[in-house]
Amino acid sequence: MVKKVSIVEKIHSANDQLAAENRQRLDRSSVFSLNFMASPGAGKTSLIERTLHELTPLFNIAVIDGDVATSIDANRAAEAGATAVQINTGGQCHIDANMLQKALNELDLDSFDLLLVENVGNLICPASFQLGTHKNLLIASIPEGDDKPYKYPAMYQDVDALIINKIDLLPYVDFDMPYFEKGVQILNPDLVTFPVSCRTEEGIQFWIEWLKEQIDSKKNI
Amino acid sequence: MVKKVSIVEKIHSANDQLAAENRQRLDRSSVFSLNFMASPGAGKTSLIERTLHELTPLFNIAVIDGDVATSIDANRAAEAGATAVQINTGGQCHIDANMLQKALNELDLDSFDLLLVENVGNLICPASFQLGTHKNLLIASIPEGDDKPYKYPAMYQDVDALIINKIDLLPYVDFDMPYFEKGVQILNPDLVTFPVSCRTEEGIQFWIEWLKEQIDSKKNI
Repeated sequence: MVKKVSIVEKIHSANDQLAAENRQRLDRSSVFSLNFMASPGAGKTSLIERTLHELTPLFNIAVIDGDVATSIDANRAAEAGATAVQINTGGQCHIDANMLQKALNELDLDSFDLLLVENVGNLICPASFQLGTHKNLLIASIPEGDDKPYKYPAMYQDVDALIINKIDLLPYVDFDMPYFEKGVQILNPDLVTFPVSCRTEEGIQFWIEWLKEQIDSKKNI
Repeated sequence: MVKKVSIVEKIHSANDQLAAENRQRLDRSSVFSLNFMASPGAGKTSLIERTLHELTPLFNIAVIDGDVATSIDANRAAEAGATAVQINTGGQCHIDANMLQKALNELDLDSFDLLLVENVGNLICPASFQLGTHKNLLIASIPEGDDKPYKYPAMYQDVDALIINKIDLLPYVDFDMPYFEKGVQILNPDLVTFPVSCRTEEGIQFWIEWLKEQIDSKKNI
């Protein structure tokens, strides 16, 4: 196992180098970029669809979709009006900076304002691989349960914004919001948080306003 | 990346060897064993609690709990009447056969009828590591969405039984059951399936009956 750890370290170092290159390319083209991470089924693709619905009239948006096997999510993003690129990770439980670099090669970055990267559905692996995006976003979901910050601390510690999705299900499940929020507070006290329902659209406007501010501040640099 | 793959193969070969040893130990002690796999929040711990509630009056049950960081789940299993052993995977996204072997060393196996192993919440990594348990169980959950068999085929392909949990949420989410079932059918046509709600207890009795049959057939060998 020691041998494995040393190799993982080498890969991470190369990954960080490539992540820095990705960031430079995105900055040169004034594209604001976001890495969407979550468990399977928390609502990454639904949130991307909802975001595209609100923002494609205002901005040119690209979506890069990571998936172990299919292109279901990339197809949904393309149908919702984005230029979509599929990364098939071949069984890997995360996107890494090298995979993102290859996907960026498929895009004329200067023609976009916003890049949404949909990571593989997983609360463990993606936390270890920086991609070079400007912000890392975590989507939690009410039916997943209120103990997730305690059980997946690495993921909650390192993100810049948190969506709490499926709040329309709060009446039907046992979810102790103060207990959840306490876990988040311990790990990441200044985390920007948006409780939403992609299904009913509740709360979506606050998320969209925040995202528009991020895109505009990138364009004004 | 080639270097990494070759090492993963070596680890798997050692893992399969240790899994076979684990199986022999469980067989010698006539313990029926199950590996519970699922996304974070699909209901592994709730199903284990419900199962313990039904079966601790009849059988001696041990629970081995894998988690990246905490012992929340092992504590819940212990409170529900099982002898519980915690495996802290130190950030790894799965339990492997070596970790299970160490946990088995903590148990007097001859004194148990049933061993429930709760894997790390993940739909990718655990599928690659056999533990030596008699059956692999996958817990899907209604709010996760109906596309999961298509997106995580390796997991659906290799399991022996499927729980579809949180069926009480069917009226409140968009879940196309025929589409889900079609995906399962393609990947694993003979899969034993139990639609349940751990919250309302609907369907639990069919799962418990199946499990009792498995335990009894193990004891009669």
